[in-house]
Amino acid sequence: MTIVLIDQDGPLANFELGFAAKWESRFPKEIFVSLEERRTFHIKDDYPPHLREHVESIYLEKGFYANLPITNGGLQGMREMENAGFSIYICTAPLSQYENCVLEKYTWMEKHFGKDFTRRIIVTKDKTLIKGDFLIDDAPNVEGIKSPEWKHILFDSPYNRHVTDRPRIKWDTWRDILPVSA
Amino acid sequence: MTIVLIDQDGPLANFELGFAAKWESRFPKEIFVSLEERRTFHIKDDYPPHLREHVESIYLEKGFYANLPITNGGLQGMREMENAGFSIYICTAPLSQYENCVLEKYTWMEKHFGKDFTRRIIVTKDKTLIKGDFLIDDAPNVEGIKSPEWKHILFDSPYNRHVTDRPRIKWDTWRDILPVSA
Repeated sequence: MTIVLIDQDGPLANFELGFAAKWESRFPKEIFVSLEERRTFHIKDDYPPHLREHVESIYLEKGFYANLPITNGGLQGMREMENAGFSIYICTAPLSQYENCVLEKYTWMEKHFGKDFTRRIIVTKDKTLIKGDFLIDDAPNVEGIKSPEWKHILFDSPYNRHVTDRPRIKWDTWRDILPVSA
Repeated sequence: MTIVLIDQDGPLANFELGFAAKWESRFPKEIFVSLEERRTFHIKDDYPPHLREHVESIYLEKGFYANLPITNGGLQGMREMENAGFSIYICTAPLSQYENCVLEKYTWMEKHFGKDFTRRIIVTKDKTLIKGDFLIDDAPNVEGIKSPEWKHILFDSPYNRHVTDRPRIKWDTWRDILPVSA
């Protein structure tokens, strides 16, 4: 039994697209940093200091997480991985301002993957405490109190392309990296 | 570094007391099963079938989890364990009807232990996927997909007294079981 932990925001929930839509409607006169221009993992850090409070206000708003679109290939990729026999768990870190995101991570999963799948959500700030064979995550560095048991597979994004020491996938290439004989 | 995972409802949040107060005000004419009479882990199962929907309505209600009182000794016990050098994480399973309890587990921890401590919450249906040296939990059986890494220490309750193969603590006896030299 191979356990694959999948990060929610990035691989599954399209945070970038959700943010872009809200940003352009709320702050149409401000600069917008497109996905291809993104260089840091935390979107706030890619904006000049005077705009960071605005950036934060977008993703702290009630409904932001619940209404994120799903990534291209996310639904099909997850189904393929399940059919290939992997045990899949969602491994997601909440914002420190947890008030909206924690519950909305559950409602989002239910909306896109069904109620049963909400049983597979693990919410934790520290992903190194979670057991698994692989972690698919767009964060360049996933660190914590433990040396992780899982192997980190980067979910490809412009802001993690400087990382070259780990395998990298998108939803159409996961079979190149994960051992399907599992 | 010794990691101690602590279950939230039971050891810390006094589910029983919170339930009793609501039950007696909402259904004063129905039978009430006192804590000392409890024999099953899920409170619903200790009530006759025709009352189970009522039982459920109590703990599914908005505000139930947020307003649970803290257990006797819970605050002091946690502080003592931290001072003894243990790394403490809260390891809590959400109800399948997650709508109120997930967020309220966070607000409860913040209310009693401070905002910083909410970073130490791990929400998971399957606790065997969490790494740690010990799990303090009032559930008689904590099972899941993996063989757990932690040693289960029972948090003593009337409904788990039939279990005799594991160490058992209350907040005033944890030092008898946990290796304080850690």
